[in-house]
Amino acid sequence: MSETAAREKLIDLAAQFYDQFELGEIPHMDVPTRSKSNIIFDEDAGVWVYGDRSSSRSANSVRGARKLLKAVYTIEFLANQLDEDRSSTLRELYYLSESWDEEEAQFNSQDQSNSLVEDLEIVSGVKREDFHMRPEESGATLMGPLLLREQTRRGDREIHCQEDVGEGGYQIPNNPDTIEFLDNDADFVMAVETGGMRDRLIENGFDDEYNAIIVHLKGQPARATRRITKRLHDDLDLPVTVFTDGDPWSYRIYGSVAYGSIKSAHLSEYLATPQADFVGIRPVDIVEYDLPTDPLSDSDVNALESELEDPRFSTDFWTEQIELQLDIEKKAEQQALASRGLDFVTDTYLPERLDEMGVI
Amino acid sequence: MSETAAREKLIDLAAQFYDQFELGEIPHMDVPTRSKSNIIFDEDAGVWVYGDRSSSRSANSVRGARKLLKAVYTIEFLANQLDEDRSSTLRELYYLSESWDEEEAQFNSQDQSNSLVEDLEIVSGVKREDFHMRPEESGATLMGPLLLREQTRRGDREIHCQEDVGEGGYQIPNNPDTIEFLDNDADFVMAVETGGMRDRLIENGFDDEYNAIIVHLKGQPARATRRITKRLHDDLDLPVTVFTDGDPWSYRIYGSVAYGSIKSAHLSEYLATPQADFVGIRPVDIVEYDLPTDPLSDSDVNALESELEDPRFSTDFWTEQIELQLDIEKKAEQQALASRGLDFVTDTYLPERLDEMGVI
Repeated sequence: MSETAAREKLIDLAAQFYDQFELGEIPHMDVPTRSKSNIIFDEDAGVWVYGDRSSSRSANSVRGARKLLKAVYTIEFLANQLDEDRSSTLRELYYLSESWDEEEAQFNSQDQSNSLVEDLEIVSGVKREDFHMRPEESGATLMGPLLLREQTRRGDREIHCQEDVGEGGYQIPNNPDTIEFLDNDADFVMAVETGGMRDRLIENGFDDEYNAIIVHLKGQPARATRRITKRLHDDLDLPVTVFTDGDPWSYRIYGSVAYGSIKSAHLSEYLATPQADFVGIRPVDIVEYDLPTDPLSDSDVNALESELEDPRFSTDFWTEQIELQLDIEKKAEQQALASRGLDFVTDTYLPERLDEMGVI
Repeated sequence: MSETAAREKLIDLAAQFYDQFELGEIPHMDVPTRSKSNIIFDEDAGVWVYGDRSSSRSANSVRGARKLLKAVYTIEFLANQLDEDRSSTLRELYYLSESWDEEEAQFNSQDQSNSLVEDLEIVSGVKREDFHMRPEESGATLMGPLLLREQTRRGDREIHCQEDVGEGGYQIPNNPDTIEFLDNDADFVMAVETGGMRDRLIENGFDDEYNAIIVHLKGQPARATRRITKRLHDDLDLPVTVFTDGDPWSYRIYGSVAYGSIKSAHLSEYLATPQADFVGIRPVDIVEYDLPTDPLSDSDVNALESELEDPRFSTDFWTEQIELQLDIEKKAEQQALASRGLDFVTDTYLPERLDEMGVI
């Protein structure tokens, strides 16, 4: 979305309060309830979105009025930021509010400013990136047969993500919508949880041999990482696969790539890749390949049980795998494949799995 | 160090055990004690190194013999790895040991294999990077007027760290000794703790205006980040400055850049930049610039008190600053400077501080 369009949407939001005043209404802003009980499956988009339940921020109490005041100051700040083509982090916004003339508008904690920016995203339909709000840390990388053009403040940069980068790969910028894909020889995308496995795939030349674009997830992936993964799927029509450890926290990582998260269900259409397929480590891999394991902790068991209840995991595949894992009471890391030798993952495990999945 | 030289040092280590057998000695290996009480200041190198206290791994007990057995298997693995020009992560080594024929040689936990690799580093005088052992995660970036050549498995890459990279910057590889510095227009290096501040400096064009190489530390810096910082100082004769939050944990981040860490004091000469200067946030900045603060927690107070006892922090500067902080009972983040506006850090704070420090 252009700066101008994003700015207009923000101003519209402020204008609503004026309209409400004029109609003699108490100013208010309605936002969907952000909880597990209020997400529903959107059949058309194939992603989970918020349902109909909403809560209201209304000026009918001092507390509510103060929230709206903070919202209005933030809208003004964001509108100016877009006007000047600047950007800032969520933390800077929190600190910056200390310089606002109206003390009641200042934030008391960063939680407050973070959640207000989320509210504004949802209500205005403008993404945080289009407000020019940056995350604190991003830091994921990409490597593979892909030529792209990134629009930076210092001009455009054309970068081939194998030939023009070092072994560390191409650093995904905070807002990957500044990237244009120019050309590629890729057959699929593989999003990888850990740095150790990412480096293994690169060292073994997996990206080269299988024409794969390797995206490093770095644990729970940042929005920028999920966004570029989705764009690789949608714009380039590439299958997306996700390769993680074999434990409930890693299934959530897969879930955040494929289904979106509860906290950002309003962004599912922008961030989620529902077609993303899970490679492993599956509990059945632990059994079949006799991988070195660790016992499940109590919190692992709780997380698995909570996933069994989660609508996003209520497929035959996940039910079967999670029940198997609760049964064997074990988990394994992706690097546990090294117990079969350093090349086992690229010579045997991945080719077998990807063939089975119909990707290669 | 070349693969051949590193391999020879490892073989020498194994040969020692043969010599000890031949002399009728019980095989053993002596390693320096790695604790705060056994680090001393090396006046020549200007860094902290291990003192004379050492502990012995000896085959005079089953436990000790098992340790030496694991060491010998690991030496063989590493020697083969170097022979084949492969590399691996510490975690892979742990899992890989499951494939070893001698069950007693296998590691029971990753702590065991990690600490053995540290022992081997110290005793052989070969760095982990030269064993081709990779860390799990690295991920720091660099941006600035620097042209370098990185030697990768796929050939050499020439990269200008402003013109050939996106806004994310140049990704520092796991072993920065594969980098050759070709040309630069830099006046100094600034190592920055948080991603939010790193992005602020880049957005405001600070690297361009002040010919600064901005290294993102990403919290406690990885070895690769500390190594490249030291090389920028030593090879290019550039002053190094460190810009962090104003709390005891951030002073430790500065300390690990400048003085080295207790865990890796054997690598201080390779990783530490004793000439690195602390920019801030200093406790006196909190007072002078009236920054937004958080109160010190109990663990903050304990950490500050422990720093007062730490030989590496026993300078007038640090004693004064730490005592001031204990007195005001407050800490501040680097992004708190945003309370004076988004440009305050690059227009006022940094120019004033760097001028005061004699860097610009």
